[in-house]
Amino acid sequence: MSMQQDNRFQAIIAHAKEYGFVFPSSEIYDGLSAVYDYGPWGSELKKNIRDYWWKSMTQLHENIVGVDAAIFMHPTTWKASGHVDNFSDPMIDNKDSNKRYRVDHLIEAHAEKLALEGKKEEEYALLKAMDELIAKDDFTGLKQLIDDHKIVCTVSGTSNWTDIRQFNLMFKTEFGAIASDSPDDNIVYLRPETAQGIFVNFLNVQKTARMKIPFGIAQTGKAFRNEIVARQFIFRMREFEQMEMQFFVRPGTEGDWYKYWKQARLDWHLSLGIPADKYRYHDHVKLAHYAKEACDIEFEFPIGFKEVEGIHSRSDFDLTQHQLYSRKKQQYFDNEIDHATGKPYGNYVPYVIETSIGLDRMFLLILSHAYDEETITKEDGSSDSRVVLKIPPKLAPVKLAILPLLKKDGLPELARQLMDDCKQDFRCFYEEKDAIGKRYRRQDAIGTPFCVTIDHQTKEDGTVTIRERDSMQQRRIKLTDVRQEINRFM
Amino acid sequence: MSMQQDNRFQAIIAHAKEYGFVFPSSEIYDGLSAVYDYGPWGSELKKNIRDYWWKSMTQLHENIVGVDAAIFMHPTTWKASGHVDNFSDPMIDNKDSNKRYRVDHLIEAHAEKLALEGKKEEEYALLKAMDELIAKDDFTGLKQLIDDHKIVCTVSGTSNWTDIRQFNLMFKTEFGAIASDSPDDNIVYLRPETAQGIFVNFLNVQKTARMKIPFGIAQTGKAFRNEIVARQFIFRMREFEQMEMQFFVRPGTEGDWYKYWKQARLDWHLSLGIPADKYRYHDHVKLAHYAKEACDIEFEFPIGFKEVEGIHSRSDFDLTQHQLYSRKKQQYFDNEIDHATGKPYGNYVPYVIETSIGLDRMFLLILSHAYDEETITKEDGSSDSRVVLKIPPKLAPVKLAILPLLKKDGLPELARQLMDDCKQDFRCFYEEKDAIGKRYRRQDAIGTPFCVTIDHQTKEDGTVTIRERDSMQQRRIKLTDVRQEINRFM
Repeated sequence: MSMQQDNRFQAIIAHAKEYGFVFPSSEIYDGLSAVYDYGPWGSELKKNIRDYWWKSMTQLHENIVGVDAAIFMHPTTWKASGHVDNFSDPMIDNKDSNKRYRVDHLIEAHAEKLALEGKKEEEYALLKAMDELIAKDDFTGLKQLIDDHKIVCTVSGTSNWTDIRQFNLMFKTEFGAIASDSPDDNIVYLRPETAQGIFVNFLNVQKTARMKIPFGIAQTGKAFRNEIVARQFIFRMREFEQMEMQFFVRPGTEGDWYKYWKQARLDWHLSLGIPADKYRYHDHVKLAHYAKEACDIEFEFPIGFKEVEGIHSRSDFDLTQHQLYSRKKQQYFDNEIDHATGKPYGNYVPYVIETSIGLDRMFLLILSHAYDEETITKEDGSSDSRVVLKIPPKLAPVKLAILPLLKKDGLPELARQLMDDCKQDFRCFYEEKDAIGKRYRRQDAIGTPFCVTIDHQTKEDGTVTIRERDSMQQRRIKLTDVRQEINRFM
Repeated sequence: MSMQQDNRFQAIIAHAKEYGFVFPSSEIYDGLSAVYDYGPWGSELKKNIRDYWWKSMTQLHENIVGVDAAIFMHPTTWKASGHVDNFSDPMIDNKDSNKRYRVDHLIEAHAEKLALEGKKEEEYALLKAMDELIAKDDFTGLKQLIDDHKIVCTVSGTSNWTDIRQFNLMFKTEFGAIASDSPDDNIVYLRPETAQGIFVNFLNVQKTARMKIPFGIAQTGKAFRNEIVARQFIFRMREFEQMEMQFFVRPGTEGDWYKYWKQARLDWHLSLGIPADKYRYHDHVKLAHYAKEACDIEFEFPIGFKEVEGIHSRSDFDLTQHQLYSRKKQQYFDNEIDHATGKPYGNYVPYVIETSIGLDRMFLLILSHAYDEETITKEDGSSDSRVVLKIPPKLAPVKLAILPLLKKDGLPELARQLMDDCKQDFRCFYEEKDAIGKRYRRQDAIGTPFCVTIDHQTKEDGTVTIRERDSMQQRRIKLTDVRQEINRFM
């Protein structure tokens, strides 16, 4: 990350805090690592993104319905999905500082140090050796590599390391219904992904909503991962929110549907008016053993191109696993006629295309794309500056600020009437203090797309000044047209 | 609960499952106790209730803003709030079955048995003795009471009990950043209420959104309680969702604001068209030590009058506790002039009125009020029956079903055009199979307020039949008026 990029990212984080978008969690207790709270305008922006996704996926697709599954699921779910056995990273602890490291991060940090010292060849050799050992799950070899390079803990400065062991990323808790001798009987995990809440409900949803293949099930909700190194603000958190859709298709058609959703999801992003060159696909070369195809949609964040959404062709892996572990058939009866055989396609376990987007990442995408520091040349030739969030109007936390020019002459009363009218349809903000320019700047800073000023002329001819956030253009429209004018953008 | 009430409740639970509203969690793995998943229509109904609450509390109140705090909070939060020390129930384990009981539930079950055997006096004496011992936290006495009455475990049939001990209702998990010797260093709780996420953010919100007292902070989100006996369907779950608002006021005005919110919250319920006689207040006589006044809004569920919402005058207890534990002032500077002294009110810790409603309980309220089994007399004198969910149209999962009478003659095409037009504004359902009467019944069962039928007359004069769910009245309106007609009810 360049210094300039880093400065921009830091400015966005500072702005998010100062203007009520994102606060460190439990900040009065000095925060909780890799957990954040959304403030007054952040909670609205987050809700608006979630609603926009939900509408586009369910309301606008009659063959996609929703579910809202619990965070707690039967623990066998995570055996079937592979998370109990495989969702882990190799970790090592320093015995003096008690600090825990992901082995690859520890070695990479040392390699970076070598690079800074100009030891390019040593750096390259170290990373190559690490990759080979990780591929073989050779923990003894990795430990030896750390010892050979005399890699030390940044806190204690010592190389007094434990052995390397696997550390599962799922959080667990204990259900208290049974006073078992073996606490393992009561272990329940916090879901590390929302997808399994869809798969275990596949037949319940298909039958009760009488869905015909191809059809999808959408869900938004929290997921939890015990990330050891969680950083980059809200990009990687221990608690985060996913917006996922699993699309169930007839085996053999998954290639076409994968292509369809890959395009459809990018189109969704572009529908928000963000330029296409800020996005790119990253097709996965190395696939999970069950995956047929997979790609990320990457966005150019201030920290570089990073994944915001994944589209995955997951085959019948998940449903087949749940069939195996639950001993309950996870099949669909397809009564459509297969023209090759002249008979119905009959019973099968459907194949699945998944679209999975991080709500917090989408929030960061919108925020970082919207953030702009502008220099403005005024009419008298002098210059001024402003910070403005150019959030798409559909997603903006506040849609309209209603500003009486003065706190007298009946202007507040007129403004109040407009407020009462408009607030039925969208969130408005009323403010009568300070100079109008200062009030505009505050609305720019929280991304309010429109400001309406009520002045003396309003009393004479029933018109108001409407100011557009991005262009700062002002024009007069009828007071009675304001509500409809704003609704056009929603 | 009477047999009739119980039958009605069981019928609602069965209907909720059959028509895709609520499923037992992880049902293919035989469920997870006291956890439920919301299905295709349940997830929409739940979202619509949440959105209706959110709009009424934030969009329509310019002095209330939202937050969306994380489920994970710094553990000191729960020391300050009193949950670590006090949020617990006395429990006892049977050593043979390993089954755990809440002491009061175990004794009450025995008392009920005595009552059924006609031993009314013994029942009364037992309950009286229990109440006295619980009030004194006398665990030795309670254990003695269980022994004296030879109370046995229903599973093992033995009276081989452990001692009684306090069992905290908070779920806990371990954060993995530090490899500490003492696991206590890493303990993080799943929040047992959303309220504290508002209190710890009080100053951040007040300052960044420039709020003036009186003002409120609203939040919806998951909370978790390790209930030992969780039952009555979604009424008491281990994972549930709250919709809370904390209203911060000047000390001395809390009595008036308590009255205001007590009325305003009941009015909100009545705004949904539910008759007032289904509701009642239950004023608390026994108050928490910090509370000044408190009441529940109770609704007549099929299982009797039960709490759906609480309004609590919480004094400055929470903010003062966080001030104490964080050593950071939680004060507001009130620059309004106190007419008694001629000076500004100055710095103080605000008092708080809380309104706290269970989203899942509100869902159960809507569902159980809406559920109706009707006998219909047809025109020819014969009778028929239907199950209908009379959900308020604003909250219904599907707003409009679009039904071409036949699958030919261009009727599906006309229906498709209407669908494309209407789905921009609200969720529609398209169906062209089966007799029209059968299709109406299916829409009744999921609570769709309007059905529109496209028939041959539509092609001639551009009109359709619109059928209203509750009255089953049908009338013809112009195809082009349908969208607007439905929007009137949203």
